[in-house]
Amino acid sequence: MPAPSSSEYLIYPAEDLRRFAGRCFQAASVPQADAELAGRLLVRTELRGVESHGIRWLTGYCRSIRSGKVNPTPDITVAADMGAMLLVDGDGGLGHVVSYRAMERCLERAAAHGMGVAAVRNSRHNGAASLYALQAMEAGCIGLSLTGGGVRVAPAGGREALLGTNPIAFAAPSRHEPPFVLDMATSVVAGARVQLHALQGLPVPLGWALDLEGRPTTDAEAADRGALLPLGGSVELGGHKGFALGLMVETLCNLLSGMATGPERARTGGAGGMGHFLMALRVDGAQSLDDFRDRMDANLRLLRESAPMEGVERLYTPGEIEWRKERDREANGVPLRPATVEALEALASELEVAGLG
Amino acid sequence: MPAPSSSEYLIYPAEDLRRFAGRCFQAASVPQADAELAGRLLVRTELRGVESHGIRWLTGYCRSIRSGKVNPTPDITVAADMGAMLLVDGDGGLGHVVSYRAMERCLERAAAHGMGVAAVRNSRHNGAASLYALQAMEAGCIGLSLTGGGVRVAPAGGREALLGTNPIAFAAPSRHEPPFVLDMATSVVAGARVQLHALQGLPVPLGWALDLEGRPTTDAEAADRGALLPLGGSVELGGHKGFALGLMVETLCNLLSGMATGPERARTGGAGGMGHFLMALRVDGAQSLDDFRDRMDANLRLLRESAPMEGVERLYTPGEIEWRKERDREANGVPLRPATVEALEALASELEVAGLG
Repeated sequence: MPAPSSSEYLIYPAEDLRRFAGRCFQAASVPQADAELAGRLLVRTELRGVESHGIRWLTGYCRSIRSGKVNPTPDITVAADMGAMLLVDGDGGLGHVVSYRAMERCLERAAAHGMGVAAVRNSRHNGAASLYALQAMEAGCIGLSLTGGGVRVAPAGGREALLGTNPIAFAAPSRHEPPFVLDMATSVVAGARVQLHALQGLPVPLGWALDLEGRPTTDAEAADRGALLPLGGSVELGGHKGFALGLMVETLCNLLSGMATGPERARTGGAGGMGHFLMALRVDGAQSLDDFRDRMDANLRLLRESAPMEGVERLYTPGEIEWRKERDREANGVPLRPATVEALEALASELEVAGLG
Repeated sequence: MPAPSSSEYLIYPAEDLRRFAGRCFQAASVPQADAELAGRLLVRTELRGVESHGIRWLTGYCRSIRSGKVNPTPDITVAADMGAMLLVDGDGGLGHVVSYRAMERCLERAAAHGMGVAAVRNSRHNGAASLYALQAMEAGCIGLSLTGGGVRVAPAGGREALLGTNPIAFAAPSRHEPPFVLDMATSVVAGARVQLHALQGLPVPLGWALDLEGRPTTDAEAADRGALLPLGGSVELGGHKGFALGLMVETLCNLLSGMATGPERARTGGAGGMGHFLMALRVDGAQSLDDFRDRMDANLRLLRESAPMEGVERLYTPGEIEWRKERDREANGVPLRPATVEALEALASELEVAGLG
């Protein structure tokens, strides 16, 4: 991806983007509190520099609501309650809202039982999985957030897409240091990154994907139609570790919650709802939360200050770059591509709300 | 690794190996029930074909007990109890015994609260992480088993070993099909595999490890002294995904339980105890256990029967090969290398117990 230059990008205050996203969701019949929540979460992803999962999705979300694929006023319920483990039904609502509310319940259960887990069914796309791990972290817990959906990734040795990209996100509280946040697809790359390459007319590196005939490809359009390769293997075969991690996510998100899994979705062609797996874990069993934060700070510093390989300036801990971007963009504005701005202005006209200006 | 040929290997009945391991542990002062448990678990790993974590470790375990590094009669206690989440203290006992007892408690808590988690402190090496995920699976739950120890893996972009190989194991119940079991180091390969290459005088592939000067190497001896590379990256830099997964395991196993983390172990040179993170999860929130098993079977079949890539005969689901080996070796005996047999006979003499015969 080319580095952004100020002449290519337009800069908007973060608060303007949040208000804009909120009013679009409201115009699409989402109640005010949920609209503001979804807008805040979507813009947070853009602030963190994860353009692939950011505000460019707003158009799709609003259209999905208006076409009836997403329920703007879901009745989010606890369908089964085992104490520390819940089955949450999202009633077809926006994934951001369903996941945030489900994690709120995990945090309540963690306060009572040391941890809380939600298997979530009947949800929709919930954006960057890290959003809900961050939510737990900001409440002083360890957060885990998995999501399983789509049919994009081939099993190791296979030529057909049979699993979602099935991201794993994890976050743990620190005190002063940029916190440790993991957010990774179990494929070599996220599907949205391949899409973004296709949109920009760029090739993809060999080893990201197969074409529809099951051959390794560098053509982003072909890769977008074909199958992504699972993490951790060779160009030829894909990785058995990524395949197993993807199947773990599929099991926890979809088998456990009663939703269709990737192989089932591939065979029935049914999109159906999406499943998530969310967990909040208290850290004050062996030590106080304060001591945990201090130790996390010390560990992150030891890693960052360790000797880099030749040609590497310094090490970054997972989530550090995103944390720095979020603070910078909150203070100095968020760069958007002209094409993204154009699409958002068109959405504003469609919804008859004020544009970005 | 070369394929085993019957002229190279000696075959022993599984039950003979279990009895042998049990009497060695007993001779090293482990009480009978724990000795039999540890022997059974160690031999199970050998049955599953995971030679790197199998019976060749028996000598080291028995010597660690006799030298006082491992406590043969630990008082395994719940040091903090939050309901669904426990802090378990292993009192320096054999990791196999500590982990098995801790997972037993997770299963009790899962019955009461839907899930149970144990952060384990003051444990020792617990062999293949999958053993405890299998234990949960065989009780009808989803099992997760993480372990953090050693100082073997460089962070992405770094030249120094600062993390353990930090394996992730996961297992979920099926009915008739070989169950889905994941067991993977978060490094490109497990440290024990590099050791095994060094012992056999074989080179390691480029991309597995760095030498002590931080340069990529194919020399197994140099790789064994240097740093393993984290999963999912290039030969040059190692993988940021593997680094983040390794740090997640370190956080859950060691930060949470109050044990020293990899970067702390590297700086203090202290071995100290090992931490684990174990979880049992009930699957009967959205459906019955029977229905879960049937759906898992169907999913594993869909994956196995899907179209392979050119040059691949058929797909294997994670854990399938180990499951087939376990059944075959239980019925037909376990092949051991002559060097392994020699070492075990020497151990028997040292402990003054009957040998393998």
